[in-house]
Amino acid sequence: MAEDEARDEGEFEIIARIFAPLARETGALDLKDDAAVLMVSEGHELVVTCDTLVEGVHFLQNDPPRSIGHKALAVNLSDLTAKGARGYVYTLSLALPKGTGTFWIEEFAAGLSDVQAETDISLIGGDTTATPGPPTITITALGLVSHQHAVMRLGASRGDRLYVSGTIGDAYLGLRLLGEPNLAETWGLTDEDVAFLVDRYRRPAVNNRLAILIRNFAQASIDVSDGLVGDIEKLCRVSHVGASIETARVPFSNAGMKVLAREPSLLPILITAGDDYGVVAAVSEKSGPGFESEAEAAGAVFSMLGTVAEASEGVRAVDAKGQAIPLKRKGFSHF
Amino acid sequence: MAEDEARDEGEFEIIARIFAPLARETGALDLKDDAAVLMVSEGHELVVTCDTLVEGVHFLQNDPPRSIGHKALAVNLSDLTAKGARGYVYTLSLALPKGTGTFWIEEFAAGLSDVQAETDISLIGGDTTATPGPPTITITALGLVSHQHAVMRLGASRGDRLYVSGTIGDAYLGLRLLGEPNLAETWGLTDEDVAFLVDRYRRPAVNNRLAILIRNFAQASIDVSDGLVGDIEKLCRVSHVGASIETARVPFSNAGMKVLAREPSLLPILITAGDDYGVVAAVSEKSGPGFESEAEAAGAVFSMLGTVAEASEGVRAVDAKGQAIPLKRKGFSHF
Repeated sequence: MAEDEARDEGEFEIIARIFAPLARETGALDLKDDAAVLMVSEGHELVVTCDTLVEGVHFLQNDPPRSIGHKALAVNLSDLTAKGARGYVYTLSLALPKGTGTFWIEEFAAGLSDVQAETDISLIGGDTTATPGPPTITITALGLVSHQHAVMRLGASRGDRLYVSGTIGDAYLGLRLLGEPNLAETWGLTDEDVAFLVDRYRRPAVNNRLAILIRNFAQASIDVSDGLVGDIEKLCRVSHVGASIETARVPFSNAGMKVLAREPSLLPILITAGDDYGVVAAVSEKSGPGFESEAEAAGAVFSMLGTVAEASEGVRAVDAKGQAIPLKRKGFSHF
Repeated sequence: MAEDEARDEGEFEIIARIFAPLARETGALDLKDDAAVLMVSEGHELVVTCDTLVEGVHFLQNDPPRSIGHKALAVNLSDLTAKGARGYVYTLSLALPKGTGTFWIEEFAAGLSDVQAETDISLIGGDTTATPGPPTITITALGLVSHQHAVMRLGASRGDRLYVSGTIGDAYLGLRLLGEPNLAETWGLTDEDVAFLVDRYRRPAVNNRLAILIRNFAQASIDVSDGLVGDIEKLCRVSHVGASIETARVPFSNAGMKVLAREPSLLPILITAGDDYGVVAAVSEKSGPGFESEAEAAGAVFSMLGTVAEASEGVRAVDAKGQAIPLKRKGFSHF
């Protein structure tokens, strides 16, 4: 692990005390070198993904640092899961303002550790540096998948069923509630509902155990990070297909359903807001029942929410009567 | 490649037009997915390193964006070189302030391309995002090395010769000249000298072709990023040895020697300033002559500047008479 800053404790000590325990692979050399050495077992391919979180853009200044660590790793795992890959190792770049306390770093590392405990992934190296800007975290995650078994955006065909894991829109509602706490009353939410939704914003579910289902059953897959409809559209664009999404089948949490009961007009927003970090899988009609029973056996929650169509039909959200629902936007963009 | 911002042109188009040409590996999928798939050929190990550059910390606001792209990739390659690994692929995280023009991005990518042209490495994926802070670039580079042939900081033994590639202190002098242009006159430098030194600060040498020499001859190695003496000390700490560095043998450029002739007191600073991005190799006495002749045949410039000593002797810089030179600090720290 490279280091170019020193705190009270010294960067060597910070790395040795706080981050080295996260480095389980021998090749990480306890983070004592500035590079790590990795074996890739025969017959396997490496899946590589990279996501950056910036304070004020991807998380809030007041978010607990433990949740920031959790989120940074979980969003990368979500990309690996969508490719059918099991997490292996990751590098961590941590750019922090001068004066960031060791408590922040310890809690951040605890969030990484929480996610590691649920998966096979571990820290392999990285860089720590000072920044005059906001805390900025980049993780490059490497996953493993059997040779030629990676699942990509390309591969969906007309007639495939579209499934999504987890529930949709919770993170959006959590973020809204953080900004406008009074909405809890408007939406008729209990304190538990609010806590649940805020937690979904701060700590996306760690979904890497779904990778094996994706690998075994999906023709194509994508993680839902920038909005359900927009991400399905990305998958469809690369696969040269269209899709029909039945909004009546989109999975919402109990808290989400409470909000929708009070404010049905939020539906188009929930299915286009970001930060869900579930995975969308296109599964052939024939494999559908097998996928569903394996998912159930694994305790994984997937909802069938539509079908793949011809490219000429585009990507449409339709209500229970088959009427297209107009969407102002399909996914998240920073501008 | 993940994308979560859009400019005039749209992020999809930016990635397709500017970055996809840098992605040579099939597994990069023309950056159309949010993950890449990689083969690691049998009998090889992967070397992983990660470096972050922040504007105002690792480069200057007025540095040409092409040089920033060059530097971001070159400093990562320097870590791979020190491990004896040849560059394979890298991920790029680019956090840019809103309003950064496409010209900046094009020039930045041209700098990456310049470095790619000198090596085997290519872009495999990444993330682009907006930041309210300064431009922040993180590259995670993957290199390949034959099984169990990676060279680490650990492995130097008493009596090994210490070699360093390139010249020392040029980047420090270039940075000083950018801050105080009048120093050119004080130091008796021509415009060419100044341009050379500034370029060494902005565009560290691409040294990956040295990897094979390191792999075949070095017992231990480290790249010189935080100051020659400090980095040798890091190598020695992990190898449980000491070292004696003969300052009379430290390689300086012609411009560097001009400065030292006028201001000899800069010597302790040049050997402890950062940003050199050469490699230090510990080579056994027996292998020394073979290393030197192979290096010469390859057109690589390595200078023998000292020997590895007992740990109890520490890491010392000594003058031509064998007198220890006092150093205020041994390497670079941000605080």
